Amino acid sequence: MSDFSRLSLNTATTKKWTLEQAVAGCVKAGIPALGPWRDRVAEIGTERAAKLISNVGLRVSALCRGGFLTAADPAGREAAMADNRSAVLEAEILGTAELFLVVGGLANGEKDVVAARHRIADRLDELVPFAVEHGVRLVLEPLHPMYAADRALISTLGQALDLAAPYPASAVGVAVDTFHVWWDPQLQEQIARAGRDGRIASYQVCDFNLPIASDALLSRGMMGDGFVDFPTITRWVAEAGYTGDIEVEIFNQEIWDSNGNDVLETMKSRYAELVLPWA
Amino acid sequence: MSDFSRLSLNTATTKKWTLEQAVAGCVKAGIPALGPWRDRVAEIGTERAAKLISNVGLRVSALCRGGFLTAADPAGREAAMADNRSAVLEAEILGTAELFLVVGGLANGEKDVVAARHRIADRLDELVPFAVEHGVRLVLEPLHPMYAADRALISTLGQALDLAAPYPASAVGVAVDTFHVWWDPQLQEQIARAGRDGRIASYQVCDFNLPIASDALLSRGMMGDGFVDFPTITRWVAEAGYTGDIEVEIFNQEIWDSNGNDVLETMKSRYAELVLPWA
Repeated sequence: MSDFSRLSLNTATTKKWTLEQAVAGCVKAGIPALGPWRDRVAEIGTERAAKLISNVGLRVSALCRGGFLTAADPAGREAAMADNRSAVLEAEILGTAELFLVVGGLANGEKDVVAARHRIADRLDELVPFAVEHGVRLVLEPLHPMYAADRALISTLGQALDLAAPYPASAVGVAVDTFHVWWDPQLQEQIARAGRDGRIASYQVCDFNLPIASDALLSRGMMGDGFVDFPTITRWVAEAGYTGDIEVEIFNQEIWDSNGNDVLETMKSRYAELVLPWA
Repeated sequence: MSDFSRLSLNTATTKKWTLEQAVAGCVKAGIPALGPWRDRVAEIGTERAAKLISNVGLRVSALCRGGFLTAADPAGREAAMADNRSAVLEAEILGTAELFLVVGGLANGEKDVVAARHRIADRLDELVPFAVEHGVRLVLEPLHPMYAADRALISTLGQALDLAAPYPASAVGVAVDTFHVWWDPQLQEQIARAGRDGRIASYQVCDFNLPIASDALLSRGMMGDGFVDFPTITRWVAEAGYTGDIEVEIFNQEIWDSNGNDVLETMKSRYAELVLPWA
């Protein structure tokens, strides 16, 4: 009998499920934690979502997501800050300390990545005190460089850690998502650094498939279906001292079109085979 | 009148042209250098290609390409080494000192990037003396991480420089291709390092387009059509002391389907606008 006590279902993996269905699916599959996306929470309201999840004894591993901090105009900036403050409050109500941030790409028509990264740093700095006040950690997620232009100008774990460095580890953490970082030649040393700094806020497992999907966001695959070396990366994360939840977050049309309960069973068996022995 | 004295046409940009047509196109457009691919050279034979190019006074900026060094089986390894030795000899005959290497991705079924990178280092080490003997520099090209699994497990300029470090700058260089490296948060410092080390063997300009093409290799775009900040990166390359050829290498179906002479005129005007003032 495998130990699924650290396994968490990110609700994006079963995209067609409502939050109620995802909660029921986890209970049925014996998955003890859930990483909800804000749209699924918003559908029933944050308070109700929090009760729904806690009533059945599930943990919230993290909330997805805030971010998109790079708007170049004042109105866009204020809208982003307001949305991120809302996300912090939602995380607090849901009882998770970890709020993922996908930091955003270039502004419309912009090509200056250096300037856009400065805006990310400035707005993170503005957001940190509010998050700390509410007991929520902002989790910087490096995204694969193929998404740098339009989704996240944080592309490596080292860069995320540099950005987090001015803040306490309890205020700003980082996520290790295998899909996004598997290729990084500095991965082992940066995972070790993240562990030393106490900043690993989430470990997400998901494979990197080829060919890249026509919607590039959907290139994520079930563990074992792509190119990621899960035993090695999982060992590095374990050696870095991470003992938290391990979330499965997959955007993949074929998986979305499958029966959700079947997806959870596949996810459990792949986790048991490729991740758990090294975690 | 713009100064096109450093501009080079990589033959992949006008994929449908034979080498003769590419040479004639460059002469007509006043482009003084050419970066041929080996398939176009092979069609007419290396000696004949060399004469064709030198007879009209064109320079060969670099030869594309050797590499694919990661085969895990002895036969695959020996085939790769033989092919790379051939590429060195072809570069020598063509009169260019710069041979691009696209180092290769994971072997069939392999997931161990660390082991595959060790094979790259081992085979590079084996190839260097042969290249030096023939006056050819091996040029390590970092490729965008979206190609790490299947084409090149060198994903950053810093990684390429680490791999080059044991060898003289005249033996192993690096390429800066804007498409592949624009997103790298360490780009400025690694370009400066490459310059200090005397290792910048080629500067290739090409834009990064979105959405990613259905064949991901074809996401390269004409300068100005995508997200790359050419003035900034060109300035970094110039500040690093690079004064060599600037090659335009674009894989893009729409450009391939256009009239080659028109492509060269567009290339010249975009180069004059976005690259030359900072070069």
